[in-house]
Amino acid sequence: MRHDHLITSKQLSRADIETVLDHAAEIDADRSAVADKYADRLLGLLFFEPSTRTKLSFETAMKRLGGDVIDMGSVDSSSVTKGESLADTIRVIEGYADALVLRHPKQGAATMASEFVDVPLVNAGDGAGHHPTQTMLDLYTIRENAGLDDLTIGIMGDLKYGRTVHSLAHALTKFDAQQHFISPDSLALPREVVYDLHQEGASIREHDALEEVLPSLDVLYVTRIQRERFPDENEYQKVAGEYQIGPDSLSSASDDLTIMHPLPRVDEIAPEVDDTEYAAYFEQAHNGVPVRMALLDLLLGDSDE
Amino acid sequence: MRHDHLITSKQLSRADIETVLDHAAEIDADRSAVADKYADRLLGLLFFEPSTRTKLSFETAMKRLGGDVIDMGSVDSSSVTKGESLADTIRVIEGYADALVLRHPKQGAATMASEFVDVPLVNAGDGAGHHPTQTMLDLYTIRENAGLDDLTIGIMGDLKYGRTVHSLAHALTKFDAQQHFISPDSLALPREVVYDLHQEGASIREHDALEEVLPSLDVLYVTRIQRERFPDENEYQKVAGEYQIGPDSLSSASDDLTIMHPLPRVDEIAPEVDDTEYAAYFEQAHNGVPVRMALLDLLLGDSDE
Amino acid sequence: MRHDHLITSKQLSRADIETVLDHAAEIDADRSAVADKYADRLLGLLFFEPSTRTKLSFETAMKRLGGDVIDMGSVDSSSVTKGESLADTIRVIEGYADALVLRHPKQGAATMASEFVDVPLVNAGDGAGHHPTQTMLDLYTIRENAGLDDLTIGIMGDLKYGRTVHSLAHALTKFDAQQHFISPDSLALPREVVYDLHQEGASIREHDALEEVLPSLDVLYVTRIQRERFPDENEYQKVAGEYQIGPDSLSSASDDLTIMHPLPRVDEIAPEVDDTEYAAYFEQAHNGVPVRMALLDLLLGDSDE
Repeated sequence: MRHDHLITSKQLSRADIETVLDHAAEIDADRSAVADKYADRLLGLLFFEPSTRTKLSFETAMKRLGGDVIDMGSVDSSSVTKGESLADTIRVIEGYADALVLRHPKQGAATMASEFVDVPLVNAGDGAGHHPTQTMLDLYTIRENAGLDDLTIGIMGDLKYGRTVHSLAHALTKFDAQQHFISPDSLALPREVVYDLHQEGASIREHDALEEVLPSLDVLYVTRIQRERFPDENEYQKVAGEYQIGPDSLSSASDDLTIMHPLPRVDEIAPEVDDTEYAAYFEQAHNGVPVRMALLDLLLGDSDE
Repeated sequence: MRHDHLITSKQLSRADIETVLDHAAEIDADRSAVADKYADRLLGLLFFEPSTRTKLSFETAMKRLGGDVIDMGSVDSSSVTKGESLADTIRVIEGYADALVLRHPKQGAATMASEFVDVPLVNAGDGAGHHPTQTMLDLYTIRENAGLDDLTIGIMGDLKYGRTVHSLAHALTKFDAQQHFISPDSLALPREVVYDLHQEGASIREHDALEEVLPSLDVLYVTRIQRERFPDENEYQKVAGEYQIGPDSLSSASDDLTIMHPLPRVDEIAPEVDDTEYAAYFEQAHNGVPVRMALLDLLLGDSDE
Repeated sequence: MRHDHLITSKQLSRADIETVLDHAAEIDADRSAVADKYADRLLGLLFFEPSTRTKLSFETAMKRLGGDVIDMGSVDSSSVTKGESLADTIRVIEGYADALVLRHPKQGAATMASEFVDVPLVNAGDGAGHHPTQTMLDLYTIRENAGLDDLTIGIMGDLKYGRTVHSLAHALTKFDAQQHFISPDSLALPREVVYDLHQEGASIREHDALEEVLPSLDVLYVTRIQRERFPDENEYQKVAGEYQIGPDSLSSASDDLTIMHPLPRVDEIAPEVDDTEYAAYFEQAHNGVPVRMALLDLLLGDSDE
């Protein structure tokens, strides 16, 4: 794999994805081989929206590679408050750093920004657009726990607005996966996403309850239902309650079921589930480090390699 | 000394404390021996409340040991705004870092958090609870300036709400110290703290004026009286004025008196005192670095050492 | 050059300036000689005002020298909110760092602060006062693009409030430069600055339109006209419009014209200019790194060198 920028997981072939996941697994097993590899390199972090785990895990990944980061800081404390355009900000910071990570509230921001810079740029989320490194760590976690072939996965919660979910669903079409989508009607997968998935040859089914499909699942991927999507608090409570996972909801699950969640969660998964063999969501968050180390290594490495 | 977590100075024996202080003194004299010791280690900083000196001195300490930090940043720019629990935040960040430092507004937060993590966790202040590294640097400063045995110390100001003061008072019971507490009635040491100190065998006396005890003191530890504790501004002005230290207040002091303050100060100590031989409060702040280097070295070092 | 602090470019002789610019050029050509020079040194960043490029380029410079930074963070998250004085904050942080960089909204803050510290302090902007490292990178960019001798430069925009402009104008009096100042009457250079420049032997002329002087210019230095200076929005629009640079404004310019801007810009220079040979403002921003590396190297280096 050799790409100048990483904007969407759609740009990656199955072989590209496997290169990243294999390299992440190597690093996860023994990171000493890359521990000082980028001692003189700086990664520029430009987060125009709040983030804990994405930003920190990029920072951790770069430092675990021996490098360092420079962080634009929050929007409040930057020149953005003086009316500077994203294109200008990114062209200035390009001069300081060897690669850039961008999160921005506007869809398409990463694509636009990438046209102005010569150093590699990684999209860490552009509004309702893409977040490819999240998808890569999700795929890595699925592969480690259940395998990516002959996979039956349930994806549950807010399927309408969930950037993470759409991106994962598209990536899974490159593997032999049966995808079940579980949500209330009002938060179902948008019709154009369903259409695109069919075009890509995906095997998908939609459900409004978990019970009917739970016994067949290798992986259950739960997402947060955001209160602010609902005009009426009662409506939210009703919907949210039906898609919560507690110890009781799992009686018909396979012993090998893996439960994932991109975090942060509010109450979609009860704390009692944390200590069961099912729970893989903290491992999933931790996988952000080796996966991002692998991606940064592939982006920063010499193109002759 | 070998502890998995450092939550309160109460967990440390006199021998433990002396191990830390001795090691801090070694580092203070020559830090070259540890300058690259933790080159591949990351310290995670989780500060849920504003802090300058504590956070910066932990960061400095880790970097002076050759390591690096990752900082969750302010609460505004983190997932906490999405309703994530402290237990979840800490379990995620545990996966990125080799040790954690936590400051949190709720008493007991560090104890709770420590139950969820496998890496060492240091409490950097939990509301009205504990702040053991402040106590250690206070003890270090006292030892360097006046010695910890046969010590006569005055502790003045807000003794009611002062976490720093309670923690120091408890720690001093492990040494041969005569403690004088000087405050207005409304800010006196809580009765349960007095009771506990007596139980621990402390030699303590309470006063409402400094004059009567000043000549006997080796150390005078001044704390800030917080304006926001007083419903009435006039009441505050009256009380605060009586417990301010200026050049005139010190005429009956011993030539060897050491004046300390945890900082930040507002006007408890007049700037004219800064240039006298008495003033040790900036040295005290600076001692945060060798003391925290010593603590981190002891926590991160191999248990076989 | 050997100075304990860098407060204003006025303190630097022509020879001092050339020493910095020559060293910056060496570093720019090959930074490997200094890449690990300050591996155990920490630079303390104290920014009491928002900043992107200045703060990030100091951070980048220090890290490109092998060192690291500690950052006080935004004022909101620091002890300053508890009423601490600048003198106290700086004396505490002095104990953590090997050199300090200070930006503060009050003119004279850097001079005052420098009296309290023993480590080198660099002024990164003190209100309407000085910002010497900006001047040095401006001079460096001029030298690289047009040379500093036999120079004809136009400085346009807000000349009344522009700290950057005053500082640059003073520094240019040490070289053989013809300076043209172009602005609306209401934003003309203050009379006392004109007086001082004449005292320093400067060759200056003032204009209210660019056309009359454009053909003669080697360099055109554009600054932002700040909307908030104008009580009336219409007045702002009229003035700002007349001092905007677009492709059409440049028909009479020399082919060798270099256009500079301290950034951030709003609409003083149209995006169409970015891709012309004239544009040097992103290069100018990037020059902040080698120039600040040179300055830090000269301040941190052994005095025997």
